[in-house]
Amino acid sequence: MTQLLRVQNFSVSSDGIGAGENQNAERPFGDAVDPERLFTWAVATAGWPNRTDSGGSRGLDDYFTRDFAHNIGAEIMGRNKFGPQRGPWPDHEWQGWWGDEPPFHTPVFVMTHHERPSFTLSDTTFHFVGGDPAAVLERARGAAQGKDVRLGGGVSTVRQFLDADLVDTMHVAVVPLEFGSGLRLWESPDDLLDRFHLEVVPSPSGVTHHLFWRK
Amino acid sequence: MTQLLRVQNFSVSSDGIGAGENQNAERPFGDAVDPERLFTWAVATAGWPNRTDSGGSRGLDDYFTRDFAHNIGAEIMGRNKFGPQRGPWPDHEWQGWWGDEPPFHTPVFVMTHHERPSFTLSDTTFHFVGGDPAAVLERARGAAQGKDVRLGGGVSTVRQFLDADLVDTMHVAVVPLEFGSGLRLWESPDDLLDRFHLEVVPSPSGVTHHLFWRK
Repeated sequence: MTQLLRVQNFSVSSDGIGAGENQNAERPFGDAVDPERLFTWAVATAGWPNRTDSGGSRGLDDYFTRDFAHNIGAEIMGRNKFGPQRGPWPDHEWQGWWGDEPPFHTPVFVMTHHERPSFTLSDTTFHFVGGDPAAVLERARGAAQGKDVRLGGGVSTVRQFLDADLVDTMHVAVVPLEFGSGLRLWESPDDLLDRFHLEVVPSPSGVTHHLFWRK
Repeated sequence: MTQLLRVQNFSVSSDGIGAGENQNAERPFGDAVDPERLFTWAVATAGWPNRTDSGGSRGLDDYFTRDFAHNIGAEIMGRNKFGPQRGPWPDHEWQGWWGDEPPFHTPVFVMTHHERPSFTLSDTTFHFVGGDPAAVLERARGAAQGKDVRLGGGVSTVRQFLDADLVDTMHVAVVPLEFGSGLRLWESPDDLLDRFHLEVVPSPSGVTHHLFWRK
């Protein structure tokens, strides 16, 4: 079976912005971008990975959130998704934003030029890897035991993999908010139509799901 | 965790018809209903359970077909979905429509008043069970190892479980065809609004997905 590289549940504003500038430990999504507003649609669903009760909606949006872990064997993320540090690691205290039970439950490959030993929290192991997108994808596929690989973001990591033409499918939820400035996934989703099919599906929640897959 | 009873990828015409009268071995869906036209939307997707190649669409419809086996531990089906026989089993030669590799991969509970020993094809075991819907659901939940139970149909079996108020979530794909006569799931989807939330999601394929979940 082919092992796909998949972007899932990636949320951007209607002006294409997925994160703000000036990320820090208090503002994981940086200035101007309130992650609560960006993920309201997902948090409301029964399938939201961090949900601990049995409530939540089971309409269209839920099909997307409950697909999050389905046939995924590894995640690749950029260093800025993992944490606010830049440059060499000052120490190894920072273990991500997600507490003792990260929602990944697979190996996670964090892209960085700065070496750091792997560590494990619950059933998620974080590896720190250099190299270009193709090399990182090869390592992640090897760890995924035949399953697909999730490309977890952030914005610049998704763009890097799109530029290298390595993304197979992509689900982007466009939220009816304008942020005005920040890190932009695209000027327009039509930028990708040379290489991808696109289905645009409006959800009753107000979000518009954009589904891309390779031509 | 709650074990839900879920209807998935159940296809009906725009006049609510899921199967015709006079089912026989040559026409599993009976008169007037061409299953190829009813399932065109599903067969086109990458996630269609019977697909053997790596093609297929990965848009909205694919989220529904690839959810088919996700967290499902057992299926319940009516006897008319299993085969065209009525009354006592003439013999045990008939083993369903699906050949040596049925697409269920779990225990399947076939509702019938007529006893028959269980048998296994590949990783699907068929059990033949009497009793009312609540009793059959209890057996299926016990076999599902904590996972959800799929209510596989046909039309009259889904209606029986709806009448007994045992269905938790239901996905019905309404196909833009009129059959005029046959077995009707509903007069209108609005029949169920007293007990269910409903989201109606049009797909670019022409099908309209109806998603119900309990209020």
